[in-house]
Amino acid sequence: MINPFDDTYFMKKALQEAEAALEKGEVPVGAVIVVENKIIARAHNLTELLNDVTAHAEMQAITAAANYLGGKYLKNCTLYVTLEPCQMCAGALYWSQISKIVYGATDDHRGCKAMGATLHPKTKIEGGVMEEDAAALMKRFFIERRNLN
Amino acid sequence: MINPFDDTYFMKKALQEAEAALEKGEVPVGAVIVVENKIIARAHNLTELLNDVTAHAEMQAITAAANYLGGKYLKNCTLYVTLEPCQMCAGALYWSQISKIVYGATDDHRGCKAMGATLHPKTKIEGGVMEEDAAALMKRFFIERRNLN
Repeated sequence: MINPFDDTYFMKKALQEAEAALEKGEVPVGAVIVVENKIIARAHNLTELLNDVTAHAEMQAITAAANYLGGKYLKNCTLYVTLEPCQMCAGALYWSQISKIVYGATDDHRGCKAMGATLHPKTKIEGGVMEEDAAALMKRFFIERRNLN
Repeated sequence: MINPFDDTYFMKKALQEAEAALEKGEVPVGAVIVVENKIIARAHNLTELLNDVTAHAEMQAITAAANYLGGKYLKNCTLYVTLEPCQMCAGALYWSQISKIVYGATDDHRGCKAMGATLHPKTKIEGGVMEEDAAALMKRFFIERRNLN
């Protein structure tokens, strides 16, 4: 039997969040957190709207997932995020001991690899899922912003 | 004339926040953010109470200071924090472009230096201010916790 709940399925949900961010004029990054094929948190970047550098999609998703679970550790959870997490988000994910991170596009400048961030030894990480869709959204944002200025 | 608003003055305020955290059974870390000798944000660690790994003193202080200033960049601001920031907090401070970080005790395991975190090129960092007081609070927390278990 085909399992409909694969990485592409959940990354599409994260991309929907990223699109919601784009509509608000935010850098289009979206995230969902999944446990046993169930989405327990959805969030998108809100740094501009909230005037808050900490309001990345991943940070909000971590807080929401912990609220749902009633505990701060995200064991057995997978984060799907459209862009490679930055060192702030990697740091939060470290503390959460999340089981897996799946991201879309790579961030060559501010991504956790480029910044040399440390992930928790219990955390697996995998990139490139629906990479082109995530990158296309980012490109659209930067073209639209350039045209506004 | 003696300036009463020196690093010790503001670190004492951060230590008061750390004491408030200790009273709540939290890892005792406190922070204040200062601009032109005025405290615009005070916070202490609330990770246990909120069940949220992102609720470090620094993260809450960054959000509160940005709210006060009405903008997400903390230029001309100084963060006083009792313990060396972790990579999550260093990452948030990076995005905020804060001018200066002054910390008390060093965190040899999870501090931003040990974790290899990157600070913003505009950010100065200085440690060791009232280090012994900050370290004594941490020690008290871990002794009390050990006795409870």
